Amino acid sequence: MSTSIATTSYEPFTEETAIAYIEKLNQKLGLFPAPSLLICKEIGDGNLNYVFHLSDSLSGQSLIIKQALPYAKVVGESWPLTLRRAKIEAEALQKAAETVPSLVPNVIHTDDDLAITVMEDLSDYTILRKGLIDGETYPNLGRHIGTYLAKTIFHSSPFGENQQEIKEISVRFTNPELCKITEDLVFTDPFFDHDTNDFEDHLKDTVNELWKNEELKLEAAKLKYIFLTKSEALIHGDLHTGSVFVTAEETKVIDPEFAFYGPAGFDLGLFIANILLNTISKTAIDEQQHSDLYQTIIETVEVFKEEYKKLWQNHHVEAFIQTEGYVDYMLGTIFEDAVGFAGCELIRRIIGLAHVADIDNISDCQKRLYAQQNALQLGSTFIIKRRNIRTIDQLIQETKDVLK
Amino acid sequence: MSTSIATTSYEPFTEETAIAYIEKLNQKLGLFPAPSLLICKEIGDGNLNYVFHLSDSLSGQSLIIKQALPYAKVVGESWPLTLRRAKIEAEALQKAAETVPSLVPNVIHTDDDLAITVMEDLSDYTILRKGLIDGETYPNLGRHIGTYLAKTIFHSSPFGENQQEIKEISVRFTNPELCKITEDLVFTDPFFDHDTNDFEDHLKDTVNELWKNEELKLEAAKLKYIFLTKSEALIHGDLHTGSVFVTAEETKVIDPEFAFYGPAGFDLGLFIANILLNTISKTAIDEQQHSDLYQTIIETVEVFKEEYKKLWQNHHVEAFIQTEGYVDYMLGTIFEDAVGFAGCELIRRIIGLAHVADIDNISDCQKRLYAQQNALQLGSTFIIKRRNIRTIDQLIQETKDVLK
Repeated sequence: MSTSIATTSYEPFTEETAIAYIEKLNQKLGLFPAPSLLICKEIGDGNLNYVFHLSDSLSGQSLIIKQALPYAKVVGESWPLTLRRAKIEAEALQKAAETVPSLVPNVIHTDDDLAITVMEDLSDYTILRKGLIDGETYPNLGRHIGTYLAKTIFHSSPFGENQQEIKEISVRFTNPELCKITEDLVFTDPFFDHDTNDFEDHLKDTVNELWKNEELKLEAAKLKYIFLTKSEALIHGDLHTGSVFVTAEETKVIDPEFAFYGPAGFDLGLFIANILLNTISKTAIDEQQHSDLYQTIIETVEVFKEEYKKLWQNHHVEAFIQTEGYVDYMLGTIFEDAVGFAGCELIRRIIGLAHVADIDNISDCQKRLYAQQNALQLGSTFIIKRRNIRTIDQLIQETKDVLK
Repeated sequence: MSTSIATTSYEPFTEETAIAYIEKLNQKLGLFPAPSLLICKEIGDGNLNYVFHLSDSLSGQSLIIKQALPYAKVVGESWPLTLRRAKIEAEALQKAAETVPSLVPNVIHTDDDLAITVMEDLSDYTILRKGLIDGETYPNLGRHIGTYLAKTIFHSSPFGENQQEIKEISVRFTNPELCKITEDLVFTDPFFDHDTNDFEDHLKDTVNELWKNEELKLEAAKLKYIFLTKSEALIHGDLHTGSVFVTAEETKVIDPEFAFYGPAGFDLGLFIANILLNTISKTAIDEQQHSDLYQTIIETVEVFKEEYKKLWQNHHVEAFIQTEGYVDYMLGTIFEDAVGFAGCELIRRIIGLAHVADIDNISDCQKRLYAQQNALQLGSTFIIKRRNIRTIDQLIQETKDVLK
């Protein structure tokens, strides 16, 4: 499926060269009905990629070209990044489409040389983070994400796929550079006085206390080690609310460029943490909003467990699968790791380089400080107490205790 | 370093073609002083490889060619095996030589096409299993193996090497076929009524009981999962007493064809189990022999921990390395896993396909049955109680309790 249309090697597209490329591709694949009249707009707001929206003025049809840039924009050209991540992202989308086709965008074409993926246009969708900030509710979201997680994780784990196939797949998804970003920005720098950190002055004392908390640091160290060494499943690797597109009914998980064989609880943890960051941002505004967000988290975890158990009962790759207590042990371990990862995400979004708009956009300084401190306290609680937080109800209760 | 001298692709050597190959290589590398008169003998007793001993009758100098066969001899040609394992073995030896050069044979030359490694001749050495069966003692063995384990594990772990380098190395050592052998023969088949199993009739009742022990099976399942998913360090992967060459003073770890990025406690567990299988075979013979063997195990673990801690204190790859309690946590986890893996190894050497001469060679049927039952009981104890066996003294005490 991946072929090069260009005769030259990598070059960043302009809106004009993007049109020229798609016109050539159109002749080959018949993407638009003839005749067509293409217009193009770069709509990316990310810091690692261009996103071109191409539409045919005659038929009204459209598609997206995502092109990886050879550096991270957020820190200028000084942070070079492999273009290979475009291939990883496209292959991760295709892999997810094998098990959850309705929950990812459709990949139309890839070109490794240009580091591009041509895919379904989801312009009718909203980025979940924006929707949540705007106070929208998504009654299907928990069910969709729970299903996405169960199916992608189970089918790529040693319970859904044989070890030999897994080893070959994990080589294809070896992703050291992107893993390094997570290793540093999620699991390391926020726990030390590091120059990538970025937090407000009014948090200085709180952050200094956190850096001196040896118990917290030991547990964070263990979670970092799990991230580095536990190769359980092909995970998304960056499943925050900016990686999810939604409409009132539909959900699409996008941007899996951080995909690699990693801990099965990582995506769940990041997703929970980002819903909670939105919850925290709404402290003392509207009880119904809190309750809806908690419900999304509860449904995500419950559907995840249900679907995972269904898959477990119907698959027979693993001889021990019928062993009493095994599936509950696995789900318990995944949840424990997820709680810890959620804790790290809550902390790094306040102290570290990459923040979330949910919190940063709180204009009232006192309210923002309060939300930031709540996020830090909840993060520390999750990290330290994760072995005692065995159920989603306990997690919600811990959250309520911190936010009350 | 790896080049092809042959113009054709893979073909198994005969003693004659082995000489011709080395004569050609000699012209290039000057292995033997001119003139030379080479003689060759195939001395392999393994089931996966040829081992050719080549010596120069004039100078008395000698070397070894190890050539991988494309199938496992033990089950005929029906179990095909990748020749790539020769490359993995040679590269694992070279990797180990970076940190423990005196504890591995020197690699002189490799040829991927022919799947051969030309290496230092260790004909003066004895296979450790044979030495132990003959009642020899090796006062340096524990110190050597403890050092070997600490250095190979630490330097290839995220504490001794950065994550990005580790990901690249682990791709080179992706070893699905050989891992599959361990997955099946160590962690799966012995716990089920599987046709690869091979145990004596007089064990039938004991084995049937073991297969019905759901607690044991759940813990074995967890250990299998650790083997499949915990990518902590570049491990040997098959460190039984047949993979160690010894003299009265020296120790060389050989045959790392099962090498891959796996759990850091695996090699330690296999080594302990195989020393214990020899101990078990000597029940009621000689208390001093038992005590010497226990001492070897104690020294292995103590030196491993000491050396690991020294490396930990002197390396700074990991930001959390100074965090209070972290090194003890890591060593505790490695030991816990090792105890569990030792348990699996004890069981599979009695029930599974591949036995050990230490036990099989006991000619008295009653004594053999007793030893076999002891091995099964000790193995089950290790697997089930591994979280409570926190020190090497506790492990020895558990062993004494079973053997008394």
